[in-house]
Amino acid sequence: MRVMGVDCGSQYTGFAIVEQESGELHCVAMGAVRLSTRDPLEVRLLRIFRELSELINAHHPEVVAIEDVFHAANAKSALKLGHVRGVAMLAAAQAGLPVVAYAPLSVKSAVVGYGRAEKSQVQMMVTRLLKLEAVPEPPDVADALAIAICHLHTAATLAHHGTGPS
Amino acid sequence: MRVMGVDCGSQYTGFAIVEQESGELHCVAMGAVRLSTRDPLEVRLLRIFRELSELINAHHPEVVAIEDVFHAANAKSALKLGHVRGVAMLAAAQAGLPVVAYAPLSVKSAVVGYGRAEKSQVQMMVTRLLKLEAVPEPPDVADALAIAICHLHTAATLAHHGTGPS
Repeated sequence: MRVMGVDCGSQYTGFAIVEQESGELHCVAMGAVRLSTRDPLEVRLLRIFRELSELINAHHPEVVAIEDVFHAANAKSALKLGHVRGVAMLAAAQAGLPVVAYAPLSVKSAVVGYGRAEKSQVQMMVTRLLKLEAVPEPPDVADALAIAICHLHTAATLAHHGTGPS
Repeated sequence: MRVMGVDCGSQYTGFAIVEQESGELHCVAMGAVRLSTRDPLEVRLLRIFRELSELINAHHPEVVAIEDVFHAANAKSALKLGHVRGVAMLAAAQAGLPVVAYAPLSVKSAVVGYGRAEKSQVQMMVTRLLKLEAVPEPPDVADALAIAICHLHTAATLAHHGTGPS
């Protein structure tokens, strides 16, 4: 199973494609789109959309996993995040892929085993789990990897219990 | 000059294309995408994106006007609105069109002459200004027409003062 994880942000949007084969996790691609605040917002959104669409076309993930948002700091930052999140979901839908969302707590629990883990712990654990040569930077890349891993764990657990992913 | 106005909403997204020729306003197209809450969010976003993209391809507006958001009720509704707004801006950027945003107060002032006008007053005034045969329904369609008219007024004022639209 091959999953694309996206960590939406107004400054960096991290993305990653992770595959699980016979229980082994493997990073297929990863990176981040850095958004220059000098560009108009619509141009920044177009860049994210194109980058994610190209990644989907190149690597054919089966599903796109993103973070659920429960506690945005305020309405202004929620709106900003919503713009990027909408475009990421659109890239998935345009390619006919389903979108699954996980609470940040679930993502950290799945990767670090502890829902309140620090960003640095997430970076360290994804590096270890995927046998990466270096710690993914910026942390948004590690978060995208963690979201993808979270979905793979969840799907595996559901399959194990015979219910299949919803 | 031909402007597309979009009124983003999580239930209805209104859209309209308005043209101004020798001072005369004329409605080229208008409507609303109704979003079924039964569809997954990414499918709803894809519908909005496709509908707006088709409209742009069919009628070639020069610019897309949307509402600025200053006072979202709360972070949750701001996030929802952000998803739709991001996708609307993307449809513009994908077609190479600039996006302009106007405060709700400016939109109402431009159309009704009063920033705190009711939805019904906006509906009545756009019907009169565009010589429509019926009041646009749902109100989101009237709002989209109003946003387009607001941009045409603003662009005309700027041109009159020799500064040109920014």
